Amino acid sequence: MIEWFEDLSLGMRFKSESVKISEDEIKQFAAKFDPQPFHLDDEAAQKTIFKGLAASGWHTAAIAMNLAVQIRPFGPHPLIGLGVDGLRWMLPVRPGDILHLEGEVVGLTPSRTSLRASLW
Amino acid sequence: MIEWFEDLSLGMRFKSESVKISEDEIKQFAAKFDPQPFHLDDEAAQKTIFKGLAASGWHTAAIAMNLAVQIRPFGPHPLIGLGVDGLRWMLPVRPGDILHLEGEVVGLTPSRTSLRASLW
Repeated sequence: MIEWFEDLSLGMRFKSESVKISEDEIKQFAAKFDPQPFHLDDEAAQKTIFKGLAASGWHTAAIAMNLAVQIRPFGPHPLIGLGVDGLRWMLPVRPGDILHLEGEVVGLTPSRTSLRASLW
Repeated sequence: MIEWFEDLSLGMRFKSESVKISEDEIKQFAAKFDPQPFHLDDEAAQKTIFKGLAASGWHTAAIAMNLAVQIRPFGPHPLIGLGVDGLRWMLPVRPGDILHLEGEVVGLTPSRTSLRASLW
């Protein structure tokens, strides 16, 4: 179990369980946060470059966050992000697609403060 | 009205309406996508580095997407993201906070394909 900073090492990998994404979930997220035809309605989406319903990229990102929280890569410590770089939406996520998350420790920077939390 | 690529110019700015974020919305998003104490429960959040309920950063990002869609910065053309760089969560977003989005055209790259969409 990873409990302390010293328990982490470069190259350490994490892999989440898989989740299946449904058409309803795609539409519900889109209605609130990304109301564009290709995220809301399959028929309308057929006429767009997506050629069918696709999840909002922010929905996929939020699902990834949830999977990260389930993994608990830092044991009892919270997962708090400072920001995002290098996020790329490579392929549309479709209803019925099964997603999982993989992570790797690519850097280790000791906190300069006494902040007792894991920032990632 | 911005309808074509040629209608855009460097330095062009966009500003959205404002939205107020509620405690319920923060909790609902967190329950689905970022179930950690500081996003779910104000009392539990008091004992964390946030010192009170704060929205998931992914929630704030999703709200920003919705505001961007409302602005319609590219007129009738869709808003499709290729990815994210340089996103930074600088301050916690609290219940009752009022958010708006500001954007600026900082680069213009003509598509190399016949893709009829605005990628941003």
